[in-house]
Formats: sequence, structure tokens, C-alpha cells
Amino acid sequence: MEKVNLAEKFSQFSEYYSPKIAGELNGQMVKLVKFKGPFVWHHHENEDELFYVVKGNFDMEFRDKTVTINEGEFIIVPRGVEHRPNAKEEVHVVLFEPGTTLNTGNVKNEMTLEKLGRV
Amino acid sequence: MEKVNLAEKFSQFSEYYSPKIAGELNGQMVKLVKFKGPFVWHHHENEDELFYVVKGNFDMEFRDKTVTINEGEFIIVPRGVEHRPNAKEEVHVVLFEPGTTLNTGNVKNEMTLEKLGRV
Repeated sequence: MEKVNLAEKFSQFSEYYSPKIAGELNGQMVKLVKFKGPFVWHHHENEDELFYVVKGNFDMEFRDKTVTINEGEFIIVPRGVEHRPNAKEEVHVVLFEPGTTLNTGNVKNEMTLEKLGRV
Repeated sequence: MEKVNLAEKFSQFSEYYSPKIAGELNGQMVKLVKFKGPFVWHHHENEDELFYVVKGNFDMEFRDKTVTINEGEFIIVPRGVEHRPNAKEEVHVVLFEPGTTLNTGNVKNEMTLEKLGRV
């Protein structure tokens, strides 16, 4: 039962698109991720995903629209919905999602991470 | 798939210890709560609870220690663990917990809320 300071945790890693586990509860995970540039278009078959911005901003691209998520804002992407995060500058994001969630969802490529580190 | 701005949502209500639902995913809920002063000692039989401070700070009291949670910090209280949030000044907190979670856990009193509003 230790508290977690987000800024401190974010200072402990620098690589992009490599979420780190910062907490677990009820089968869900709290992950911290930094990124810049576009990710890969993908969806998650069985998992909804929450993205909360703690520093910077990014565009959540959907096939029919783009939503810019700024500091202090979150968006929930329902399962099955294709999306692609894209950041002009480095952004720090908290993810809430089930422990089973694969970062690239239905797509497997060089960005796919089978195992995540902790922070 | 609309984004949620936390500051904007927090500006829409003022009552203490009355969590508002701001999002749902994977059977979990994102709730926003403002409070000041002590809550009631309680635990949750089957739910872990996350508390994330977006403004202010509060003491999470446990039977054997107290942890002060500041802005930008979170703590996860595992199921079964007795706790009591207590804030000297008004604090704005995001809760992440299963939809089934009752605010006062195993205790039922005048602070118990059977049904939550949305924001």
C-alpha cells in the first residue's frame, strides 16, 4: 500500500510506445506510456481502453474523426473500435485496461510487446 | 467516444463524498469525488479501489499508518483493507473501481449512496 507519484515514475524511463505497469487492481492494470509520432492502426477484440494525459497532448485518430486529448483529459476507446494514437510532441499518458490487453491489439508487428516492464 | 476534461467535470458539482460517474470500461467505473473532512472507516469485501488526486491532497488513513496522497499521486487500496480518507481542505479525486462498489463498503450509514449520479 505505497502511493505512486506519476511524475516520478515517468522520470524513470524514456522509450516510446513501451507501456510500464504502475499498478494492478481488479484484474485491470495501470500502465504509464510515453510516445511521439504515430502508433499502428489497431483495435482490441475484448478490451476497452482508457487514455489519460498527464503531460502534453496527442491526437486519437479514429477512421471517421480525430480527437485531441490534452493534459487533464481522458478518452475511453471501446472494444472493437479501430484507433491510432499520434503525438506531434512527446506525451505522457496513463492507460487503464485489463491485464490481458496487448498493446497492438489485433495487429502483430515490430511494435507488439508480449511482456511489459514495471515502473 | 467523446473525451472527458476532468477540471470541467469537477466544476459541475460541489457536494462532498458524493462520487459522480464519469466513465465506464470493462465493468469498471471512473468516478469523480470532492471531499473535505473524514469519511467513515470501512473496507470493500471484493473490490480494490484506486484513488488519484487531481487537486489538493488528503490523508489515506489505515489502522496502522497514514499515507498523504498529493496532486499527481495515486494509491490502490486492496480489498479487505480498512481505510478512511480524510482531507484537511477540499480535494478532487478520481476513483477507479468496479461498478458494484458501494462507497461505504461494509458499512451502511447516512453516508451510504445506493445510486450515483453522472457527470
